[in-house]
Amino acid sequence: MLHESGYTATGIKDVVDAAEVPKGSFYNHFESKEAFGKEVVDLYFNNGLVELRALLGNSSIPPLERLQNYFGERIRDFQAVGYMRGCMLGNLSLEIADQSASIRGRLAVHFRTWSGLFAECIAEAQTTGAISNQLPAALLAQFLLNSWEGALLRMRVEKSDVPLKEFTEVIFGSLLV
Amino acid sequence: MLHESGYTATGIKDVVDAAEVPKGSFYNHFESKEAFGKEVVDLYFNNGLVELRALLGNSSIPPLERLQNYFGERIRDFQAVGYMRGCMLGNLSLEIADQSASIRGRLAVHFRTWSGLFAECIAEAQTTGAISNQLPAALLAQFLLNSWEGALLRMRVEKSDVPLKEFTEVIFGSLLV
Repeated sequence: MLHESGYTATGIKDVVDAAEVPKGSFYNHFESKEAFGKEVVDLYFNNGLVELRALLGNSSIPPLERLQNYFGERIRDFQAVGYMRGCMLGNLSLEIADQSASIRGRLAVHFRTWSGLFAECIAEAQTTGAISNQLPAALLAQFLLNSWEGALLRMRVEKSDVPLKEFTEVIFGSLLV
Repeated sequence: MLHESGYTATGIKDVVDAAEVPKGSFYNHFESKEAFGKEVVDLYFNNGLVELRALLGNSSIPPLERLQNYFGERIRDFQAVGYMRGCMLGNLSLEIADQSASIRGRLAVHFRTWSGLFAECIAEAQTTGAISNQLPAALLAQFLLNSWEGALLRMRVEKSDVPLKEFTEVIFGSLLV
């Protein structure tokens, strides 16, 4: 529900109704809606992390190809759901970064973990010369992640995969060469 | 209010209270909250468009430098407000793209106008050789806009200008050369 409708639009009542539990039981598990939101953010990222590590850490495939495969997979996922919902981390970043310091803190940690995995792949590709080492791997990785979030934002508006394909065209056709 | 708190968090009552008008008068001017949101989006973009055209259309400055100046100005704006709020078009894209087709339509139109202005600048820089013409200006312009929105998203999470500086470093140090 947080992913589909956002944080403000999701009431605690909606959550307990969907879970078919009495409202009071929410507060047995979570101090507040904010505490709940924080756990949802952690759960969402940790679920995605499994696939992320599997694809980016697969040393039987050259590192640049692993990155391409990762984004290819993600694009197929978004095609399958009609370009809805996007990335929950990105959505919550814009919706509640100014409102909740604790959720913002969790988003920051997860984005750093995510870009760290990109950086490892890029650094590995730089040692083989598949990617130029003109720019540091960590910088390229941050840029890659942020640009991907921007491409997903535009995907939501266009309801099309064009922004995602433009992303891969520029990243893999020009920047990461 | 829409920019600061988001669409769902802003009630019609909040708007009429802030405007110090009776609630009924809202519906004399707007059919619905959605119609109001659409007009706010148009007003916001059209206000920004003045500065955008002034900076990007200033033919006394080389086109690549105009682009750099534009992002330099924007970064100073965000530094001045402590990295709050971000870009309202980006915020609403993630918050309500799936909920309101009419507001999404306006966001799409404005993003295209915006990237069109980038594209004119890039195309001009390509004719002088300041930017390589390996990739089409329109593609680079879309990528530039989407990546900027992504950098702003990350700025909100990090509460710092580092993502914006990383954006300009990669865009002007590597991609647009």
